[in-house]
Amino acid sequence: MILAPSGSELAARRDRLRALVARERAAGACLFSPLSVLYFTGFAFIPTERPLALIVTADGPTTLFVPRLEQEHAAALADADAVIAYPEYPGDRHPMHLLADHLTAAGVALGILAVDDDGYSGGCGYRGPALSTLLPQADVRKIGPGIDAMMAVKSAQELALFRESARWGHRAHELLQRYTRPGVKEIDISEQASREASAQMLAELGDAYRPYGWMSAGAHAGYRGQIGPHSALAHAMITNAQIQPGDVLVSGATAGMAGYYSELERTMIVAPVSAEAAAFFSLMLEMQQVALDALRPGRRCADVDRVVRKYFADRNLTPYWRHHTGHSIGLGVPNHQAPYLDSGDPTEIQPGMVFSIEPGIYVPGLGGFRHSDTVVVTESGAEPLTSYPRDLERLTIR
Amino acid sequence: MILAPSGSELAARRDRLRALVARERAAGACLFSPLSVLYFTGFAFIPTERPLALIVTADGPTTLFVPRLEQEHAAALADADAVIAYPEYPGDRHPMHLLADHLTAAGVALGILAVDDDGYSGGCGYRGPALSTLLPQADVRKIGPGIDAMMAVKSAQELALFRESARWGHRAHELLQRYTRPGVKEIDISEQASREASAQMLAELGDAYRPYGWMSAGAHAGYRGQIGPHSALAHAMITNAQIQPGDVLVSGATAGMAGYYSELERTMIVAPVSAEAAAFFSLMLEMQQVALDALRPGRRCADVDRVVRKYFADRNLTPYWRHHTGHSIGLGVPNHQAPYLDSGDPTEIQPGMVFSIEPGIYVPGLGGFRHSDTVVVTESGAEPLTSYPRDLERLTIR
Repeated sequence: MILAPSGSELAARRDRLRALVARERAAGACLFSPLSVLYFTGFAFIPTERPLALIVTADGPTTLFVPRLEQEHAAALADADAVIAYPEYPGDRHPMHLLADHLTAAGVALGILAVDDDGYSGGCGYRGPALSTLLPQADVRKIGPGIDAMMAVKSAQELALFRESARWGHRAHELLQRYTRPGVKEIDISEQASREASAQMLAELGDAYRPYGWMSAGAHAGYRGQIGPHSALAHAMITNAQIQPGDVLVSGATAGMAGYYSELERTMIVAPVSAEAAAFFSLMLEMQQVALDALRPGRRCADVDRVVRKYFADRNLTPYWRHHTGHSIGLGVPNHQAPYLDSGDPTEIQPGMVFSIEPGIYVPGLGGFRHSDTVVVTESGAEPLTSYPRDLERLTIR
Repeated sequence: MILAPSGSELAARRDRLRALVARERAAGACLFSPLSVLYFTGFAFIPTERPLALIVTADGPTTLFVPRLEQEHAAALADADAVIAYPEYPGDRHPMHLLADHLTAAGVALGILAVDDDGYSGGCGYRGPALSTLLPQADVRKIGPGIDAMMAVKSAQELALFRESARWGHRAHELLQRYTRPGVKEIDISEQASREASAQMLAELGDAYRPYGWMSAGAHAGYRGQIGPHSALAHAMITNAQIQPGDVLVSGATAGMAGYYSELERTMIVAPVSAEAAAFFSLMLEMQQVALDALRPGRRCADVDRVVRKYFADRNLTPYWRHHTGHSIGLGVPNHQAPYLDSGDPTEIQPGMVFSIEPGIYVPGLGGFRHSDTVVVTESGAEPLTSYPRDLERLTIR
């Protein structure tokens, strides 16, 4: 049972980062994204107003620049050679100035400096200067797309974590389906299913399990407001809706495994199922299969979406189109990552990429129809990591 | 019972935004932060790779620029004059180009254009050009600090939402404390307390309650890894720890009310309480009172933190200092917002500001000691919105 990426896996990721830095002829890299910090050092933390950065020199140490608050935490859990702490934000001296001092002392502020972003953008009211303003001698160069490309191809360990996440998402969804019945409220169903699935997951995985999260842990299955006609809103927010006979429902389930979250979504229909709802369900199911069949290495991401868009157009479904076919799945929540199965994304599909496959049909007044599965690209095609039933027979709530 | 800000409240906020825009002599404003969108239009959504922007002209309409996915959702729920949808991200044409076209057509791209950020930074792998690059004729000017200042002073409706949030956080924390006992695991306690408190909250608030969230709803109380010696990590992440006799615990509780989240944290100690733990608890409690007493209008944020830092220094506690005294509380999670009760923040404290008051003492090997209360500044001092017991007698787990 793998519960987190190994130290050698993290080291290999940093080697690839250093290779990317070398290709840019940069002296080093400074990365601000919390997901980059997690990906390259295994350190998960709560992003706040306080900047936190990962510094990698071309052939030197890996350093985390952290607020005092995180010093012991990072020293204990991050796979890094050194942890440097600054007092606070805004502090008596702005931490970006202290970071610039450190980058200068580390010898990476004179030539090309690779960054994911030209400063910290952590929210929570943070304001601060761009790194390029503080280091006028440096040629600050963004390598975000290169990091995205690296993260997009998953290792065997990452796939194992996705599979384990999918296993518990599946369990949570079974409970969600069991507890869904007319007269019960959305939030009650979600909380009951999530709590029971989490308890099973924690009991089975044991004390070493870590969600790498701070608000929730374990497995989750729930509705997000997509109940009845409201399900036609692809990204509805949670309501307090009561399930009614005939409702079209769109659910979601996942479980956190060291920051990795698989994606499983299902359209379910509460009996009696109208002919109209059944027809749209059937089209959605066929369309998802079309997308799954189109996903293979060597093609471009846009190709998959174009096949789906053609399906919409050929069946006069375009008025019901709302979004692209899927997204890469990476770390964190929302688990969206580049590249995207989108008509505008020319990225070549490669083995090891993990996508959500979730073309949706949204019919105002009736409901939304969307399954989402997590799928890994193989050498010859694609393999679903989620295996929950997809047919209407087994997704009808009686 | 207030469940969300009223339409007239939202309109008044937009009037203040237009006044800020006018002071900058700008023709309009384009705001990318999801929290700004929520604050000025009441529209809560899931931020993804797809940019979403709020456009306000000096004396014209309020427009939301949204992905197709959110069109009906925004039209139904946002307090805006118009909703303009673009197809997708990355799409056949990058949405930032479409946004630039719209800003040009709206006549706000020639003079000064006020922004919160020079482009979208929503994460999820989004990449795109800066607005200033796309609109070379415009003088793109950041007004983020002005918006922060506006958001920092809360209205009567906002205070009512914080009070309601605090009421349910209190209830959840009572359950958390009840279920905390040796041999039980952190996550089980958190989930049980949260689920029961949420059920009570949903039953009492009724069908109109909306959390404005998408992952969780209702009330939450829990531990975040701060169990036993691990509680010395101020921002630990969730573990799977089992409560042991003598453990020092740091908890947290809140409830979502239209995107507002009060903050309540308590240090609890599992019997038997060591003399050392009791002594640090007592110092923490006194220090929090010192901070509460120092919070009053007319002073500066830094003054409050300096009083606390002096308390640390006078008692030789500085080795146990980890972070500033508190932060403003706004929308979203984490609920941190500017200004901060930090030695480096010169902002003048004003009536209506809402802060967390949470100076903490972190003793390696023993534990962390931190209460956090949500406090509103009044005309003459400050008033706690959270009222959970603070004394060791009532916070000892027996």
